Amino acid sequence: RERWYEKISLRGYAQFRYNHTLNRDELLSNQGDRSIGRNNEFFLRRGRVIISGQPHERVFFYIQPEFASLVSGTEQVAALRDFYADLFLTENKEWRIRAGLSKVPYGFENIQSSQNRLALDRNDALNSAVPNERDLGIFLYYAPTAVRERFRRLVESGLKGSGDYGMLGIGIYNGQGPNARDLNKNKHVVFHSTYPFELPFVNHQMVEIGMDAYTGQYGVSASPVVPVNPSFFPAGSSSAGQAIPVAPVLRNGGNYLDERVAWHFVLYPQPFGIQAEYTIGRGPELNRDRTEVVTGSLSGGYVQLFYNYQCDTYCLNVFPFVRYQEYFGGRKSEGNVPRNSVRELEIGLEYQFNRALELTVMGTFTSRNSSDSQFDPVACTSFGNSPGVNNIGCLQTPYQRNSGNLIRFQLQWNF
Amino acid sequence: RERWYEKISLRGYAQFRYNHTLNRDELLSNQGDRSIGRNNEFFLRRGRVIISGQPHERVFFYIQPEFASLVSGTEQVAALRDFYADLFLTENKEWRIRAGLSKVPYGFENIQSSQNRLALDRNDALNSAVPNERDLGIFLYYAPTAVRERFRRLVESGLKGSGDYGMLGIGIYNGQGPNARDLNKNKHVVFHSTYPFELPFVNHQMVEIGMDAYTGQYGVSASPVVPVNPSFFPAGSSSAGQAIPVAPVLRNGGNYLDERVAWHFVLYPQPFGIQAEYTIGRGPELNRDRTEVVTGSLSGGYVQLFYNYQCDTYCLNVFPFVRYQEYFGGRKSEGNVPRNSVRELEIGLEYQFNRALELTVMGTFTSRNSSDSQFDPVACTSFGNSPGVNNIGCLQTPYQRNSGNLIRFQLQWNF
Amino acid sequence: RERWYEKISLRGYAQFRYNHTLNRDELLSNQGDRSIGRNNEFFLRRGRVIISGQPHERVFFYIQPEFASLVSGTEQVAALRDFYADLFLTENKEWRIRAGLSKVPYGFENIQSSQNRLALDRNDALNSAVPNERDLGIFLYYAPTAVRERFRRLVESGLKGSGDYGMLGIGIYNGQGPNARDLNKNKHVVFHSTYPFELPFVNHQMVEIGMDAYTGQYGVSASPVVPVNPSFFPAGSSSAGQAIPVAPVLRNGGNYLDERVAWHFVLYPQPFGIQAEYTIGRGPELNRDRTEVVTGSLSGGYVQLFYNYQCDTYCLNVFPFVRYQEYFGGRKSEGNVPRNSVRELEIGLEYQFNRALELTVMGTFTSRNSSDSQFDPVACTSFGNSPGVNNIGCLQTPYQRNSGNLIRFQLQWNF
Repeated sequence: RERWYEKISLRGYAQFRYNHTLNRDELLSNQGDRSIGRNNEFFLRRGRVIISGQPHERVFFYIQPEFASLVSGTEQVAALRDFYADLFLTENKEWRIRAGLSKVPYGFENIQSSQNRLALDRNDALNSAVPNERDLGIFLYYAPTAVRERFRRLVESGLKGSGDYGMLGIGIYNGQGPNARDLNKNKHVVFHSTYPFELPFVNHQMVEIGMDAYTGQYGVSASPVVPVNPSFFPAGSSSAGQAIPVAPVLRNGGNYLDERVAWHFVLYPQPFGIQAEYTIGRGPELNRDRTEVVTGSLSGGYVQLFYNYQCDTYCLNVFPFVRYQEYFGGRKSEGNVPRNSVRELEIGLEYQFNRALELTVMGTFTSRNSSDSQFDPVACTSFGNSPGVNNIGCLQTPYQRNSGNLIRFQLQWNF
Repeated sequence: RERWYEKISLRGYAQFRYNHTLNRDELLSNQGDRSIGRNNEFFLRRGRVIISGQPHERVFFYIQPEFASLVSGTEQVAALRDFYADLFLTENKEWRIRAGLSKVPYGFENIQSSQNRLALDRNDALNSAVPNERDLGIFLYYAPTAVRERFRRLVESGLKGSGDYGMLGIGIYNGQGPNARDLNKNKHVVFHSTYPFELPFVNHQMVEIGMDAYTGQYGVSASPVVPVNPSFFPAGSSSAGQAIPVAPVLRNGGNYLDERVAWHFVLYPQPFGIQAEYTIGRGPELNRDRTEVVTGSLSGGYVQLFYNYQCDTYCLNVFPFVRYQEYFGGRKSEGNVPRNSVRELEIGLEYQFNRALELTVMGTFTSRNSSDSQFDPVACTSFGNSPGVNNIGCLQTPYQRNSGNLIRFQLQWNF
Repeated sequence: RERWYEKISLRGYAQFRYNHTLNRDELLSNQGDRSIGRNNEFFLRRGRVIISGQPHERVFFYIQPEFASLVSGTEQVAALRDFYADLFLTENKEWRIRAGLSKVPYGFENIQSSQNRLALDRNDALNSAVPNERDLGIFLYYAPTAVRERFRRLVESGLKGSGDYGMLGIGIYNGQGPNARDLNKNKHVVFHSTYPFELPFVNHQMVEIGMDAYTGQYGVSASPVVPVNPSFFPAGSSSAGQAIPVAPVLRNGGNYLDERVAWHFVLYPQPFGIQAEYTIGRGPELNRDRTEVVTGSLSGGYVQLFYNYQCDTYCLNVFPFVRYQEYFGGRKSEGNVPRNSVRELEIGLEYQFNRALELTVMGTFTSRNSSDSQFDPVACTSFGNSPGVNNIGCLQTPYQRNSGNLIRFQLQWNF
């Protein structure tokens, strides 16, 4: 019998950050990095260990816990990111079924590993479609052997490819994301296509283009929020004169149509790279009066320019990059589904000391909506307890937009 | 010094399900599979990784986290199932002490691994004695070398044995189950016996019979529930006319006598198999008026018929099975300890593609009590918010019995 | 390419306890062992698995989940203790940076592994400075090669050394401990020094002395507590006549100066050992009236005498030990930061069967403050529900001091 350690292997990586807001403590992010803002702290963004292997020639398994999860107020608890099996339908592995908890093949950056991404967080437009990028479901992938070989080479050569999610893929999944249960009988359906190829007229220059789409019913939640035209607590009440928060009305038991289509284009960095994606669609969003969740349209995307500098000494590769991203639409994973308006410019540098160690520094010029339904600015959070704070004023700006700058440092180690 | 990977090994398995209720969304299960009912969803029932090894000739350790645990509303968090050590008292390993978090040797199906069980969930009667099958304690096991060899062979040959929990065993343990703390000074005591043997008059046909018993004090919890003869909110109250929920009275600080005895019989599938267990006992249960938790008697069991078809091609083994189970008694792990009445008929098929992959399909005809103390049918859960729903009617059927059919699919991969 | 199992290794240990209070159920501990008191139960104190390795000659990583964590009421959930990388600045590894979640080098016992410590829990004085001993931050360590070799030898020879946290160290870290987020912009700074050396006049007798210090701002939390001179609920109220709990006032947004200095001395057990530490400092504490958290001074330490008996047969080593410890000061990790007064005498024996198995028995004579802000004695916890219990009396002794004796047993297995 084969030894277990020949069939199973262990690897992983960590992303350890220091976040520094330059001019505005109210800068909180509801996308990716929950340590942004306020306290300029050290933060373990990702702590991943991956167990994978092939117990049978037709079966491959993959398990990835995230040791830096937040569970009910406790940081650094182990929660699953992936727990799936690939079942190869053909001997050449061109056709396979992936079952379990795995990434939903929607968008390029979503399926690219964070271990390889340049920007510290994923873009809002594509990532808000599949929070945490994963779900429980069954996916069918097809990729010809030649294309599979290209997917592999684009990752292993350090060109920051997405890995192999098929040249074509189709899947059904719950739709509420990982670490959650589905909220309706309707399942989401996703279609995925991407094609990496060598430009015939340039020396080995790789390009990838593709398109993805999904549709489903997403279950949203509501919590009290002060509407645009509020009622007020009557005189004599202990909250006299303050606006009364009301939970927005939800239709159809809270289940809303959620569908998007996306395009991506990648010019791999040999040495100059371009990466761009755009998405449009419609889904739930809080109406302007903040009284009801309705169906609205959304759009957004990003473009990233980057350069692959190969070092002679003291480092392996250096990647300067600049990315502009925007997103206009509801954020379905948040209570009340506030409509977000995000514009962000990021400039950074990834410095690879060796295969095991990277340092990234990134400056961000941001303007985005807060996810705080009640109190804004932050000084008002101790609502009702802080003498001298104008609580009414606070209450009347839920989901306020904040602009400002921040700088972040990330040390990544791979093993 | 020996290499670590020669002393320690890694293995595991996953159970990925799709649950489909055929005719009744109110079918929820308080036994095993929390995804039953309502939303027909994909669900990771088990995601197990096992680390075990022998750092010394007299010491064996075993660690099994469950990556599909529910912790405070978050799914797929890693919580322990096992973390124990076996201390071999004799060189031939016939006598050993097992200390730590491990399975309580009560019943056959409870100690059989879910990796090997045919039915998707354990039966109510035996499993309600030891929710999650495990506890913190110390156990003494004895098995002669010949019997140890039979235990091993009954698992490895695919005959779905229970593994080695001793021919005789005795143990003391907390009694509140894993992932919980004890609630009283009294410890539970369990006695275990089982004997696998070859029938002399049939060719190598294996049979196993045994008996188990335990006693202890179990700490129960109470929460408000509408009694059979309720009071009503007075006119003028915001809940005017509705029944008032009251927490049932608990005696002895909530600690109740909890003791059972059980018998099991297994005719191993060579190729036709029979497996049966029965338990009687007494323990806490909510009285008929729903006003107090008292001590009541309980009984239940199951019988399973199955067949072991060995494939020539395309598969390894196929096991068709049918199981009938019933249980009448309190469910101690639930708040208020409602008295359950469960009758269930299951028909299914386990198809083993290879040692790494199995697909099970199972139909269930069920009638069991809901664990919902307040609202039933499900449509009433949004109590107080849904205009047009008769909330009073809802409130008056806590722990209602639901009948219906469901079909479930399970893909299991082993590594 | 090198095999993964040559670069990465797995090990771990478990501590499984049985706690027995001899004469007082109210003995609860807010330091270390949360199973002390009341129910005399089996408890998994630690369940550790360590993954570590060297993916590059200049990079070492270390991951240690604690499988016995308590997360939101659920026991035995996996939460991180360590997740760090060592970056060696020099080829001889004398200088290194440690980044991520790791131990804060403050005190000897804090950085010594629990796997090696004799007493079942760390002392209050030093450990209350760094609850759970760890934090997110960056540390710079220096140790000459000869000293590094001594650190290694003092652990591997079974002399119960602390491991290598540098001869000199300096670090900045969040300050709120692991599994939490920072609550202010101010980071903690720590300075560490220790020096192990061979006494010239005794045969190979090793001695270690050192000094540590840190400073920072710690964010505390407040919750309602009955003050010394309380107001009372008015007649006619449902709580008529009872004292009204009030949350103490917090200054500076709850952030208080927190700084300490500590000294340690170790005479390694060859065969007779002495280990002693003392700390002084100042930090937040609840004032005497229980109305406000102020800055107060603190002090405490311990001295331990122990003996290293090397067995001929049936065991490896046996360590009898006696420890006296005391602490007077606020406990910053608790709500309201009650001022603690702790005096404890411990007598115990660690019996090492072999390298994989140890049994420790320890008796404790203790006098320490409860962490219960409202109800004391325990009989009052069902405040408002228990007829016949004098709730007012209960309420008026928050953080009461309890004295009593307990005996504990611990089985530890290493792998």
